[in-house]
Amino acid sequence: MINTQVKLAKRPVGLPDASIWSIEKNDIPDLKEGEILIQIEYISLDPAMRGWLNDARSYIPPVQIGEVMRAGAVGKVIRSNQGRFEIGSYVYGTGGVQQYIATDGKGWFNVDPALAPLPMYLGTLGMPGFTAYFGLLNVGKPKEGDTVLVSGAAGAVGSIVGQIAKLKGCKVIGIAGGSEKCKYIVEELGFDAAIDYKNEDVKLGIKTHCPKGIDVYFDNVGGEILDLALGRLAMKARIVICGAISQYNNTTAVKGPSNYLSLLVNRATMQGFVVFDYTKDYGIAAQEMASWIQQGKLISKEHIELGIENFHETFLKLFSGKKKGKLVLKVSE
Amino acid sequence: MINTQVKLAKRPVGLPDASIWSIEKNDIPDLKEGEILIQIEYISLDPAMRGWLNDARSYIPPVQIGEVMRAGAVGKVIRSNQGRFEIGSYVYGTGGVQQYIATDGKGWFNVDPALAPLPMYLGTLGMPGFTAYFGLLNVGKPKEGDTVLVSGAAGAVGSIVGQIAKLKGCKVIGIAGGSEKCKYIVEELGFDAAIDYKNEDVKLGIKTHCPKGIDVYFDNVGGEILDLALGRLAMKARIVICGAISQYNNTTAVKGPSNYLSLLVNRATMQGFVVFDYTKDYGIAAQEMASWIQQGKLISKEHIELGIENFHETFLKLFSGKKKGKLVLKVSE
Repeated sequence: MINTQVKLAKRPVGLPDASIWSIEKNDIPDLKEGEILIQIEYISLDPAMRGWLNDARSYIPPVQIGEVMRAGAVGKVIRSNQGRFEIGSYVYGTGGVQQYIATDGKGWFNVDPALAPLPMYLGTLGMPGFTAYFGLLNVGKPKEGDTVLVSGAAGAVGSIVGQIAKLKGCKVIGIAGGSEKCKYIVEELGFDAAIDYKNEDVKLGIKTHCPKGIDVYFDNVGGEILDLALGRLAMKARIVICGAISQYNNTTAVKGPSNYLSLLVNRATMQGFVVFDYTKDYGIAAQEMASWIQQGKLISKEHIELGIENFHETFLKLFSGKKKGKLVLKVSE
Repeated sequence: MINTQVKLAKRPVGLPDASIWSIEKNDIPDLKEGEILIQIEYISLDPAMRGWLNDARSYIPPVQIGEVMRAGAVGKVIRSNQGRFEIGSYVYGTGGVQQYIATDGKGWFNVDPALAPLPMYLGTLGMPGFTAYFGLLNVGKPKEGDTVLVSGAAGAVGSIVGQIAKLKGCKVIGIAGGSEKCKYIVEELGFDAAIDYKNEDVKLGIKTHCPKGIDVYFDNVGGEILDLALGRLAMKARIVICGAISQYNNTTAVKGPSNYLSLLVNRATMQGFVVFDYTKDYGIAAQEMASWIQQGKLISKEHIELGIENFHETFLKLFSGKKKGKLVLKVSE
């Protein structure tokens, strides 16, 4: 068996090109005492990956040059030198962009392919879902009747944020790129309205759909859209800083939000969070979201690409917006 | 008796020049039924005034062209057509930049010149003091042992913020302009350290004096210094957005904080507030601060200029930094 691995060859400047990766075909690793061998089936592609490529202090160390690219993964335990994980069971963990990994199992958890399809454990029942759940409920703190605005609304996180906000009795407006995505979040996911940032005047759209101002803005994109949301806050609004995908490939300084003094005028709060802080409550979130999915109240969508050799092209879809829902790559059978 | 009044003649662009004001000498107003006549003795000069000159939606309507410039004031009741205020008593309210005002007394409160000098009711025992008190304690929420950074640290608000933070057991670092102010906040007000933004590398200063990061940053200035503070946050830091004096005279867009994604990495909060929301608790704050002043634990400093005809030159000192403590103008005897 051959283990195809994607490693970081050099650090990118701006939008990464394929030359930053090296694709290696290596033998599968030998198992040490206490280790298991996992055959990775799906890896997760997330905007946060772009941050991990920069040599900068952050909430997690950068991926080092020569290391396998970090990625969430689900796979099957195919060999075992320990008692915790059974051969044939499925597991989730930080597997990396590769086909096999040997590990002592720390940071890996069993998942049940009978309860939900495997890719869903990388999306709604995984990190993006938990990010949406805790970011919205614990940081955004929506109340019934609140107006909730979400950017990146057709994405893995934004689509879940909007649906949970609807379940909590809020009016929900999503910002997404293109008429297809906008139609999708309104007609399929039940958002109250959508603003197409590629074809509409976003400022006017926010004004039209948020006549009483924004109570919660869940920001996945940063940049100009964050500024426009700041310009339309309701009193005591909460802005949840989840990400800033519009800024991740910048070669110049991040665009700071010029309208931040709206926080003062409106007694508003802008707060950042990192999903890892909620690890101990992942179980609760997974259970609640799984039950919403079963009841048809929460729609989980995965966009699946095939083949580890297509990692770079798939990765670029995070930034081009050419996908809907959670972006996942199938790396082996 | 002549009532000299300073009215807004036109809206400024950038740093105001004297031509935006018209100085008028009018008769003192006639008293209607239920009104009192107040001879204003001191008016308050505050950075917020600059915002009131702009024709923009904010927490308070702008001053209209042709109106007397808005200002906090203390004065003496010299005539009365009502029972609430006694002739000869002293009162605080929004008197405006003028020497006399007739009012029904709504929004005016008695102050006691035997308990504290009148100008102190415009500073530590008035709006700037309340701003410091509620902004630090209710929004910044400092805990014992926290590192608290304050900009505009020699000013009316910043000097009180730093001293209250010291009373709460925090390590306090102030940012101020010039060695005299820096010496003043450390030697007279008891700050642990000062950073002279006019003569020092502020980034290095913050790094040196906040080795464990900033737990609370109380921001009076915005701009570059806000960005440098964001770059050095401790986990779960709180940034209190009180003002942004570095940006008030901008003719271009406000500089947004490029480092705002540090809120995400550090799970931090940036929150705005307006002191008027705490009106019902002003009494508690005044009492506690007055007792600190009596016990010598809180030093209140007022910078007093003389003569209503010097209003414009005095106003400019807000932005040039050529003052220490609360800026007050004596407008009549």
